[in-house]
Amino acid sequence: MTKLIGENVLMRIFIAEGDRYEHRPLYEALVEMLRKEGFAGATVLRGVSGFGAHSVYHSQKLLDLSADLPMIIETVDSQEKINAVMPRIDEMMSGGMITMEKVRVIRYT
Amino acid sequence: MTKLIGENVLMRIFIAEGDRYEHRPLYEALVEMLRKEGFAGATVLRGVSGFGAHSVYHSQKLLDLSADLPMIIETVDSQEKINAVMPRIDEMMSGGMITMEKVRVIRYT
Amino acid sequence: MTKLIGENVLMRIFIAEGDRYEHRPLYEALVEMLRKEGFAGATVLRGVSGFGAHSVYHSQKLLDLSADLPMIIETVDSQEKINAVMPRIDEMMSGGMITMEKVRVIRYT
Repeated sequence: MTKLIGENVLMRIFIAEGDRYEHRPLYEALVEMLRKEGFAGATVLRGVSGFGAHSVYHSQKLLDLSADLPMIIETVDSQEKINAVMPRIDEMMSGGMITMEKVRVIRYT
Repeated sequence: MTKLIGENVLMRIFIAEGDRYEHRPLYEALVEMLRKEGFAGATVLRGVSGFGAHSVYHSQKLLDLSADLPMIIETVDSQEKINAVMPRIDEMMSGGMITMEKVRVIRYT
Repeated sequence: MTKLIGENVLMRIFIAEGDRYEHRPLYEALVEMLRKEGFAGATVLRGVSGFGAHSVYHSQKLLDLSADLPMIIETVDSQEKINAVMPRIDEMMSGGMITMEKVRVIRYT
């Protein structure tokens, strides 16, 4: 097994489960796009509650938020590769947030 | 759609599902507090196993941990806003851990 | 309650749910190893979909990935402690990725 060590960018895309892009779930469309663009991997996490991912919630009851749970799509790659897909992501997003930060990476291949 | 780019702080609060504050789940109380204080969003993730979030586990069997699963509450905002709610968080916590790190943020509104 | 503030390293280990080490789930083996080595805590998150964690997916259908979901094991400790267990982790991993980044930490004990 080879161990590659380097520095990359962790990109985390915060959206809502109900967000859609071209008649399908946005998180699914984003993951498929990242795969087609040759990203090494992506991980989709579903939150159990939250607020603010996309929709405006008027309710005071936390339970009512469950209809549109927050989701996070995580990927780690070079800044260049992330910059290259950013126009595509901008076009797909209809709300939400993206965070980016430098991380040290070890890849086992 | 407007795209706002800036730098913010990612705060992640690690607690246990069983932690309580004033007779209700602590994670629920924290999310509601963040919303009332005007944070833009929060995401609650529930772990599938772990240790150390709050309780002391005497068992050697990992399965026994499932009774009190770890939870992470994530929010991204300015350092000032996070500093402002920290005394409130200190008061609510009965164990656990908080991490903070600077992140680049893109918000779509 | 005591509040300890410091700087530590957040280590996140990205593997697949189906990864195994010595006839048991790798994520379980990693968490137990961290606990035995005296780490303060660990949190295991299971993704709902993704790609690239370990296996090579030939399918074009995202749904087919559900058989081997991505998992993230998170722990926060000193760089020294993480360095000390790295040879052990190297030996256990059969693919996947690790990210590390400095974080500010508040611990409530």
